Amino acid sequence: MSIPASLIHDLVIANRVLAREEVVDAYGHVSVRHPDDPQRFLIARSLAPELVGPDDFVELGLDGEPVRSGEDRPLYLERFIHAAIFEARPDVMAVVHAHAEDTLPFGIADGTKLRPVIHAGSFIGGAVPVWDIADHFGDTNLLVTNIAQGRDLARCLGPGSVALMRGHGFAAAARSVIEVVRMSVYLPRNARALMRAKQLGGGIKYLSDGEIAARNRGYRPYSPETWRTWEYWANNAGCGHLLTRPETPPGG
Amino acid sequence: MSIPASLIHDLVIANRVLAREEVVDAYGHVSVRHPDDPQRFLIARSLAPELVGPDDFVELGLDGEPVRSGEDRPLYLERFIHAAIFEARPDVMAVVHAHAEDTLPFGIADGTKLRPVIHAGSFIGGAVPVWDIADHFGDTNLLVTNIAQGRDLARCLGPGSVALMRGHGFAAAARSVIEVVRMSVYLPRNARALMRAKQLGGGIKYLSDGEIAARNRGYRPYSPETWRTWEYWANNAGCGHLLTRPETPPGG
Amino acid sequence: MSIPASLIHDLVIANRVLAREEVVDAYGHVSVRHPDDPQRFLIARSLAPELVGPDDFVELGLDGEPVRSGEDRPLYLERFIHAAIFEARPDVMAVVHAHAEDTLPFGIADGTKLRPVIHAGSFIGGAVPVWDIADHFGDTNLLVTNIAQGRDLARCLGPGSVALMRGHGFAAAARSVIEVVRMSVYLPRNARALMRAKQLGGGIKYLSDGEIAARNRGYRPYSPETWRTWEYWANNAGCGHLLTRPETPPGG
Amino acid sequence: MSIPASLIHDLVIANRVLAREEVVDAYGHVSVRHPDDPQRFLIARSLAPELVGPDDFVELGLDGEPVRSGEDRPLYLERFIHAAIFEARPDVMAVVHAHAEDTLPFGIADGTKLRPVIHAGSFIGGAVPVWDIADHFGDTNLLVTNIAQGRDLARCLGPGSVALMRGHGFAAAARSVIEVVRMSVYLPRNARALMRAKQLGGGIKYLSDGEIAARNRGYRPYSPETWRTWEYWANNAGCGHLLTRPETPPGG
Repeated sequence: MSIPASLIHDLVIANRVLAREEVVDAYGHVSVRHPDDPQRFLIARSLAPELVGPDDFVELGLDGEPVRSGEDRPLYLERFIHAAIFEARPDVMAVVHAHAEDTLPFGIADGTKLRPVIHAGSFIGGAVPVWDIADHFGDTNLLVTNIAQGRDLARCLGPGSVALMRGHGFAAAARSVIEVVRMSVYLPRNARALMRAKQLGGGIKYLSDGEIAARNRGYRPYSPETWRTWEYWANNAGCGHLLTRPETPPGG
Repeated sequence: MSIPASLIHDLVIANRVLAREEVVDAYGHVSVRHPDDPQRFLIARSLAPELVGPDDFVELGLDGEPVRSGEDRPLYLERFIHAAIFEARPDVMAVVHAHAEDTLPFGIADGTKLRPVIHAGSFIGGAVPVWDIADHFGDTNLLVTNIAQGRDLARCLGPGSVALMRGHGFAAAARSVIEVVRMSVYLPRNARALMRAKQLGGGIKYLSDGEIAARNRGYRPYSPETWRTWEYWANNAGCGHLLTRPETPPGG
Repeated sequence: MSIPASLIHDLVIANRVLAREEVVDAYGHVSVRHPDDPQRFLIARSLAPELVGPDDFVELGLDGEPVRSGEDRPLYLERFIHAAIFEARPDVMAVVHAHAEDTLPFGIADGTKLRPVIHAGSFIGGAVPVWDIADHFGDTNLLVTNIAQGRDLARCLGPGSVALMRGHGFAAAARSVIEVVRMSVYLPRNARALMRAKQLGGGIKYLSDGEIAARNRGYRPYSPETWRTWEYWANNAGCGHLLTRPETPPGG
Repeated sequence: MSIPASLIHDLVIANRVLAREEVVDAYGHVSVRHPDDPQRFLIARSLAPELVGPDDFVELGLDGEPVRSGEDRPLYLERFIHAAIFEARPDVMAVVHAHAEDTLPFGIADGTKLRPVIHAGSFIGGAVPVWDIADHFGDTNLLVTNIAQGRDLARCLGPGSVALMRGHGFAAAARSVIEVVRMSVYLPRNARALMRAKQLGGGIKYLSDGEIAARNRGYRPYSPETWRTWEYWANNAGCGHLLTRPETPPGG
């Protein structure tokens, strides 16, 4: 049950890329399911993603609590977002929670649904649901600080890839670290393109269901196209030296 | 009555963070009440916040004038904003005045009130009042250059955390340096989220009064979450080496 | 049939400038027709433009396939955009494909045509056509992955300089590397100016046909004005050392 | 008739600051009237402002042509903007021409006049006139390439501080280098504040004529407040070492 160094490095890269691409600031986090034990996941201790290094990860169970006794470093308050999504969705291998600024308006105004309008936004799927913590939990600090709240959010996410969180941010789930980072970076870009298209007036051409399906079918996490972005982002974030490209990519 | 080095360092960090996060440019300032003498406060001499170091602070009284005779360095013209707020509000320990660009539209247009729409904006409180210097002082250069103007602004602020200043900027008041910096950084973000939500159309979901209260109740200036941001901002602003985390946080 | 070093250097500069000016990220590419064989063109192997160096170029034929047998490095999936435009347009010497964010809204909303409103945008020509891959190819992944799709795009471009690609980006064609880079940088700026002018309300003053023609007549790729930008962009992109200014500019 | 080194340094700083603050890119220029001969002015040779150094200036007469025979370096095509304004306005000591992006919409859309809404924008004066080169010169390349066009622009500027140029940019005139740089930096900020205020809806509170007058009365180019910005901008632009503060400021 030891964790491959390449996975740790990928998770460090993910943290730094999300910071560099302004998806997260001091807040927001990324996690990955343990490769050998689907009942656990890895996530950084309470630390700004930009500052996360290989020794900063903790192993949590699907209840959001540390697996190892004696872990006494402060943890992210909102780790329950990750725990509940890994619990509800066996297909999900990686989760991001972030407050990316340009996704926020779609969780605040009810006039326009966030939907894919650019090809790189196709992985969002269809119209993105908005989870409002107030619906079931009343007046809170808006943070997901227990597993019940996490499970409620996971229900809203359902079988999808992204849920917006009203007045707060989003949660994204995917089959790999590379994929969840990619989706988290393109989500705000898709949001900006849609906001500006609305301002130009006239009808909006969203991606069709068939286009979304065609793109999903073609996606492979280690294709040259996907790798190109990952390599570029890692270099820009100052951690190109941590890149590991598998000789035999998973599944092929 | 000597001032702890950690407070001086916090004030240097605050200056640099506000510059780095584009809340201030050459203009704008941050102050802290003297820890031993509530009738005084510390603020930099007339200098761009990005360039402020530990030797650049002066002690002013609640009339906005230097406490020590012989102080002959030029002072901020608008130091009366700070003086008057410290005078009117014994609960306030730190004040920021700034011109952050994305707060300006809400002081110019009367169609939309600035109110919290994102959880990190909750510390603004409710709808932010707009102070118009012209109401009581007629045609001025819009700057708060005497204590009478400062007091008028402090009356508009009332028991709140922020007041917008028409065509000029804002004044923010809080219980600590960390808190006032945090509020000043999130104020423009909350403003942008609200502006963009308005453009999407439909109704706007503001934070409820209960949510604002719940967040205020939970706030502690040295919690791991608050510290995470402070550490992150300080590192980004190139002054991580000045960070001091109290072993025994104030009040607990 | 050897390629002048200055052309290779120009192509490296073009890649880096497009990255630095945020026209491309990991995706997007620039190509140049072979100076001695109009049936070939040079383009980078599959690599983020920011990372492209002199040894990263491949020679492709007008079918989009490598001219040299044994070329086994991964290629850009969308190289057919370049191949088809070079095939259809003997006057074109350089092509860019990119996803520049602020051009996207004009391919998504049908309420406003992208047209030149600023003098630096004149090289766009008149109203920019929008190519929708779905019109002839149904539900795809939106990428131009074969020569038939490339030719369909080239037909939409016609004798023009730019075509928008719905939900995806744009293709630009010009008489030189410098010119196609220049057009690609100014296209998003022109798009932003038009978007914001629309928001101000009232009528829009587009460039007249006569103004567009006057600017085109005066353009020379090695004039002091054009060179000034090229030199500035190259320096900003960290490759000023690769600049070569021809003693005898092409055509005189 | 030798030129003080401090003026040359100020002009270098002005070039670099305008570049750093994104008022100019490769295009745009700043000039200063010769301190001893009001019939001449100094401006850089054709070079991106970011790259301008002390040896790059030329002396031009009020006809826009070099004063010294033998000057054979390429000159800015649009130097006639400066020549004509210095000719028409003996009170003007410094001129900027630039294409700052956020000023462009107000020259393209006729629905909203650019007027001061923020205190730092007061130096614009009242509603900014828009000069359209097409009115008297028909279809051109939109550039001011001869003295007749320059004079037409100067007439539109009249006794004011700024004129917008339709589809092109702006010209600003002031009593000193520091002042014209300051106005050029705040002009786009004022434009953004006004654009966003319009989007919020409701009435707009512009600066009153009395406020504009009060601010103009109080302005001194070497006051601590003005110096603070100049010092800050110069440091940010990497040329703080060129700063010279006069012991005895001009005029006292």
